[in-house]
Amino acid sequence: MEQRRGPDSNSPLPEIRVKTLSSPSPTKPVLVCGLPGSGYVGKLAADYLITVFKAKKVAEFYAASFPPHVNINDNGVAVRLKGELFHAETGQGGDLLIFTADAQPATSDGEYALAEAVLAEAKRLHAGLVISLAAYITGAFVKDRRVFGTATSLEVLPRLSENGVQIMKEGGISGMNGVMVGMAKLQGMEGVSLLGETSGYLIDPAASISVLEALSRILGVKIDMTSIEERAKEAQQIFNQVQGMAEQQVEEARGAKDESKPGYIA
Amino acid sequence: MEQRRGPDSNSPLPEIRVKTLSSPSPTKPVLVCGLPGSGYVGKLAADYLITVFKAKKVAEFYAASFPPHVNINDNGVAVRLKGELFHAETGQGGDLLIFTADAQPATSDGEYALAEAVLAEAKRLHAGLVISLAAYITGAFVKDRRVFGTATSLEVLPRLSENGVQIMKEGGISGMNGVMVGMAKLQGMEGVSLLGETSGYLIDPAASISVLEALSRILGVKIDMTSIEERAKEAQQIFNQVQGMAEQQVEEARGAKDESKPGYIA
Amino acid sequence: MEQRRGPDSNSPLPEIRVKTLSSPSPTKPVLVCGLPGSGYVGKLAADYLITVFKAKKVAEFYAASFPPHVNINDNGVAVRLKGELFHAETGQGGDLLIFTADAQPATSDGEYALAEAVLAEAKRLHAGLVISLAAYITGAFVKDRRVFGTATSLEVLPRLSENGVQIMKEGGISGMNGVMVGMAKLQGMEGVSLLGETSGYLIDPAASISVLEALSRILGVKIDMTSIEERAKEAQQIFNQVQGMAEQQVEEARGAKDESKPGYIA
Amino acid sequence: MEQRRGPDSNSPLPEIRVKTLSSPSPTKPVLVCGLPGSGYVGKLAADYLITVFKAKKVAEFYAASFPPHVNINDNGVAVRLKGELFHAETGQGGDLLIFTADAQPATSDGEYALAEAVLAEAKRLHAGLVISLAAYITGAFVKDRRVFGTATSLEVLPRLSENGVQIMKEGGISGMNGVMVGMAKLQGMEGVSLLGETSGYLIDPAASISVLEALSRILGVKIDMTSIEERAKEAQQIFNQVQGMAEQQVEEARGAKDESKPGYIA
Repeated sequence: MEQRRGPDSNSPLPEIRVKTLSSPSPTKPVLVCGLPGSGYVGKLAADYLITVFKAKKVAEFYAASFPPHVNINDNGVAVRLKGELFHAETGQGGDLLIFTADAQPATSDGEYALAEAVLAEAKRLHAGLVISLAAYITGAFVKDRRVFGTATSLEVLPRLSENGVQIMKEGGISGMNGVMVGMAKLQGMEGVSLLGETSGYLIDPAASISVLEALSRILGVKIDMTSIEERAKEAQQIFNQVQGMAEQQVEEARGAKDESKPGYIA
Repeated sequence: MEQRRGPDSNSPLPEIRVKTLSSPSPTKPVLVCGLPGSGYVGKLAADYLITVFKAKKVAEFYAASFPPHVNINDNGVAVRLKGELFHAETGQGGDLLIFTADAQPATSDGEYALAEAVLAEAKRLHAGLVISLAAYITGAFVKDRRVFGTATSLEVLPRLSENGVQIMKEGGISGMNGVMVGMAKLQGMEGVSLLGETSGYLIDPAASISVLEALSRILGVKIDMTSIEERAKEAQQIFNQVQGMAEQQVEEARGAKDESKPGYIA
Repeated sequence: MEQRRGPDSNSPLPEIRVKTLSSPSPTKPVLVCGLPGSGYVGKLAADYLITVFKAKKVAEFYAASFPPHVNINDNGVAVRLKGELFHAETGQGGDLLIFTADAQPATSDGEYALAEAVLAEAKRLHAGLVISLAAYITGAFVKDRRVFGTATSLEVLPRLSENGVQIMKEGGISGMNGVMVGMAKLQGMEGVSLLGETSGYLIDPAASISVLEALSRILGVKIDMTSIEERAKEAQQIFNQVQGMAEQQVEEARGAKDESKPGYIA
Repeated sequence: MEQRRGPDSNSPLPEIRVKTLSSPSPTKPVLVCGLPGSGYVGKLAADYLITVFKAKKVAEFYAASFPPHVNINDNGVAVRLKGELFHAETGQGGDLLIFTADAQPATSDGEYALAEAVLAEAKRLHAGLVISLAAYITGAFVKDRRVFGTATSLEVLPRLSENGVQIMKEGGISGMNGVMVGMAKLQGMEGVSLLGETSGYLIDPAASISVLEALSRILGVKIDMTSIEERAKEAQQIFNQVQGMAEQQVEEARGAKDESKPGYIA
């Protein structure tokens, strides 16, 4: 089996810059991804893992396909949109690499390029399994928080179903949380996606909790969940900004660019 | 006659990755293409040819211009969107190379790049003729299933009209099924498109049957049509997913990304 | 004065392929451009110049930024969208190079790349002046067919106003007919645009006639106008197709691709 | 700390051409940016600085991601859209480099590429601080012209607040005025953005005045404000054109391209 690029051997993906900040030697690492998306399920879960395991930053990813925007944090500091890869020592036999970002790339090939760059880093650190955390949208407010799942190989599915994950039998996963899984397989890694049931309308810590509990059972890694509600409140603020940014981009498409918006200020 | 690239000799098309799986030596092969599109006419026909001739996969094509999405099959396995080239031994004097894909590229130059990569493979396997199977949309439900056609050379047209194909005298063909034909000519191959009349609203096996019958007459290759209705029912499910995916993409353009949808689950 | 590319020296424009068909030695050539656009004013004028001067094709331009589409001509032959450069011997002291295309590129950088490729060819053939023919849209049906104009240097403007062209004092020109002029200057050539007043709603041979008459006076080249009305009727058909294609593209943006349309067939 | 590009080392940003016109040796320069945007606040301020300090042009920037358009100035001359970097000798201890452009790039990666090219020039001229001037939109007509601000480092913020700038504590800045600041940090420079409160509906010289006054206090550089009202009237005309261009682009997205518009002519 041969793998080539065509039709031009030099055909490039859109630019991603990788800034390496540390070179850990993780123990049997698994890459866990959570990007901003519906219900903020995956992002909240990834951010929580970073906090609770006091994860150390490994690398930053700057994509020219990120929206043209800087975020302003609660100290008043302007920060460029970026992706971040962290290393969490769990002390429980297997470590986590955690990838999250301030935004998803705005173009299809930008998503593929970012996924490829992140997977290259994870591979360099000897990860063989990629698990993306995402939302399963029902459009209705649900009490019962099921977790749905899929994997890139049939052999991996029992590991999900034995841990209370309902295997999806059709459909698909869009955006970075899907692309990470699809690209993992292409790079010789296994991919899993865990999708927490949510209405999709609001930031939803209950869905993130369900997804993290499933992740914990699957990996055999205990996760202290005591402070996730607090973290969810902080996330709500960021979520509002992301929503505002998205609306702004739609408006920008109509003509002159808006530079800042009153809704952004308390 | 000189052929150059300009203005930059290194100006690339968007990235396509080609994964070669086998190296057949087909007998007088013709490349037949059917991509997802209106009425699912071409995709259903191509998939049926692969099934009925027990075609062997030659290569997979991964395009960064495909929608950022993984599909989940009925085993629960997540698979990245891809194009696939098959080789069908017909045992009837001439073989078929069959190209199909899970989706069409999302950008114009992505379509040209994918077409070029697929044609390069077909040329390597000595194909000189490319036939794309597509839909001719009437917007009304029709009993009479005409097949319309066009070719890249005047000399090829009688071969179509003698086999019951109505020659188009104006209009055009959009998307991969058109680009494959236009690029074929540019690569020194002949291109033909066969378009089955359909309302365009539903998956339409009757249109696919008409197109396959015309293909059979033109190539002098018998095609066993006994199981196409059954295949159509399976295709209906996939078609529903594709529609869902398309709607999802429109919604995504409005703001935060949806990762999965209830409509995707039975 | 130094000219560089930045930030990457190898940053490419989108792919354009140039197929050279002949190598003329034109006498003091001027490049005249007319692309499809509002009222079809420039395209009709360019096509007429090609016909009336029995111009010989010099090169074809294939852009991956053209819409993904093949046109079907009235013989039933499918042809890929392309740009074409012609050489017209006027026998009147100065020759014409004429550039036209089946469509405008679909992306901004695609337009700049195509313009650059065409200007490189024109420069190779020693053209120093580029004149684009375009529409000046009033939105109302007008009897009086004024011709508006602009040029890339102040010194060129009197040559326009002395020949009955009304100098524009504000506004701008969008699309290839504007980009050709702007890029000409950047390449060390002079650029002129002549814009024929039109309602913009219909194909408008009267506007094309006014523009060609102004061109004739400015260049001191007589143009036989006896058959332009006839040519306009043929163009009306092509114009209808272009409109259909445009509508189709809007619809495609909503989901599954339409491959052909009933409106395309008489 | 290592900085690499990935996944392809040759992955390019969209093309920017830099035309260097002079090589000044500025005294302790600060780069000030004002691009067209809401209320035209930043563009008007930047243009005024260029005029009042009789700044000398250093370089022009041509981006293939600029809208495909030429502007026609009040002499009747057609000029390609461009970015311009100027050097202003203030004679007050510190010089200004001023960057402005006729338009913002139309794509996300085009904005990042232009920002990177401009910052490379500014760095070459030893600027260490970048200040973008932008609008803070309230959607209502306000008498009180506050100036909001943010910076890329916590240490820089007191310099803003001590000079009457209200520190933003959440939100973000979209478009070139945000990207310039975010990229500055990535290039090892400090970035500041000053946002003048405005309704966003009209060209707003009062907002530009507030922003320039804040800039003056922060840099300790006196700016003669006597002729800004006059300059604002000229800017109003250009602003109308930009609006027209934006509307035109939306219309172009629907089908055939409009080449010129009656609203463009007095």
